[in-house]
Amino acid sequence: MEEVQFTSYDFEQMERRFRAHFFNSLSGYKSVNLCGTCSKNERSNLAVFNSIFHIGSNPPLLGMIIRPATVPRHTLTNIIEQDHYTFNHIHEDIVKPAHQTSAKYTRTQSEFDLSGLTPFFSDEHPAPYVAESRIKIGLKFRERYNIQANHTIMIVGEVVEVIVPKDVVGIDGFIDLCEAGTVAGSGLDAYLNTDKITRLSYARPYEDLREIEYAKDKQIP
Amino acid sequence: MEEVQFTSYDFEQMERRFRAHFFNSLSGYKSVNLCGTCSKNERSNLAVFNSIFHIGSNPPLLGMIIRPATVPRHTLTNIIEQDHYTFNHIHEDIVKPAHQTSAKYTRTQSEFDLSGLTPFFSDEHPAPYVAESRIKIGLKFRERYNIQANHTIMIVGEVVEVIVPKDVVGIDGFIDLCEAGTVAGSGLDAYLNTDKITRLSYARPYEDLREIEYAKDKQIP
Repeated sequence: MEEVQFTSYDFEQMERRFRAHFFNSLSGYKSVNLCGTCSKNERSNLAVFNSIFHIGSNPPLLGMIIRPATVPRHTLTNIIEQDHYTFNHIHEDIVKPAHQTSAKYTRTQSEFDLSGLTPFFSDEHPAPYVAESRIKIGLKFRERYNIQANHTIMIVGEVVEVIVPKDVVGIDGFIDLCEAGTVAGSGLDAYLNTDKITRLSYARPYEDLREIEYAKDKQIP
Repeated sequence: MEEVQFTSYDFEQMERRFRAHFFNSLSGYKSVNLCGTCSKNERSNLAVFNSIFHIGSNPPLLGMIIRPATVPRHTLTNIIEQDHYTFNHIHEDIVKPAHQTSAKYTRTQSEFDLSGLTPFFSDEHPAPYVAESRIKIGLKFRERYNIQANHTIMIVGEVVEVIVPKDVVGIDGFIDLCEAGTVAGSGLDAYLNTDKITRLSYARPYEDLREIEYAKDKQIP
């Protein structure tokens, strides 16, 4: 297997798009989600984000990275004005309309109408969900950090509502994303399905790992 | 498809481990990496992290979340003391030793010895890589943020070296993780392989998306 080594000097020489593809894929698989928001005038906005990550379970917190220079900021403005937003998992059937929401529409246009995806409002949450998404997450804005090194923004939100197919939640709380059909992201534009390898037991020094069953028949009651 | 709805009240009622599994899988697929560091006394440390995410390409920046309460802090101490660390992608053959590095060993023990993974030092970078990993990333510490909502820590690092198999880097810079065998993570303990669905062209308003070839024969020279 022939290896190639790149250092900071090489990174600086890279053509701009090459560098963007290279580093966006280097970071590993990404959690891609549709982020639903509402503007002051109650216009629904939808945009695909691929920098969603887990911060904590108690309270349940998710982070997202927003790049002001390259992404339309409607989402950021709406999150800050309206305090609520949603993340919606993407499955294979909606990969194309999901990706299309990254086009730079004007603020008077709703990506819901343009992409053909359907807004859905729960009784509990003021921001729009994507009806087609199987896993829907309602969030409330908590914190904002401005990252000095490149002026991106990290938004921390608290999960306040989850709507999920009953048969993908195991008795131990594990949500089987593979079973739900959630796709993974890679780079700026790649979408992938997944195949289970294994779940492994909690690691302890000098103790062999056990494989944990993907508990198909052991769902929450 | 029967759906189940959870709200903040339900989250509070969840048993602690159930809640941890639930929210760790809810956030979507994760980028799992082995983080290699060195202590002051040049002892190598290795730990698996599943909250690695892309922050930017120019300069190339990666973020990671460290939870002081649950993860041994050797990694954090070493990053801050030594200023350099590595991320190493995981493939199916090293999933078990990688997961085993999450066991709470004492600081005098090296997870390299205990897991059977091999440290590798490049000429350019002071922190240890994992020789078995196919995609190796050398980083320099840039910024630290303390997240108020749950006292986790976000570390921002700049990529200063990348070692990667030549034939997984496309002419457009895209690194084919599926081809490299990089696994995805889910929840606290699940590992998955991936299958390509598609790569889609840059989205523009009112323009149809094209599929981009996964350029097998179009590698960098």
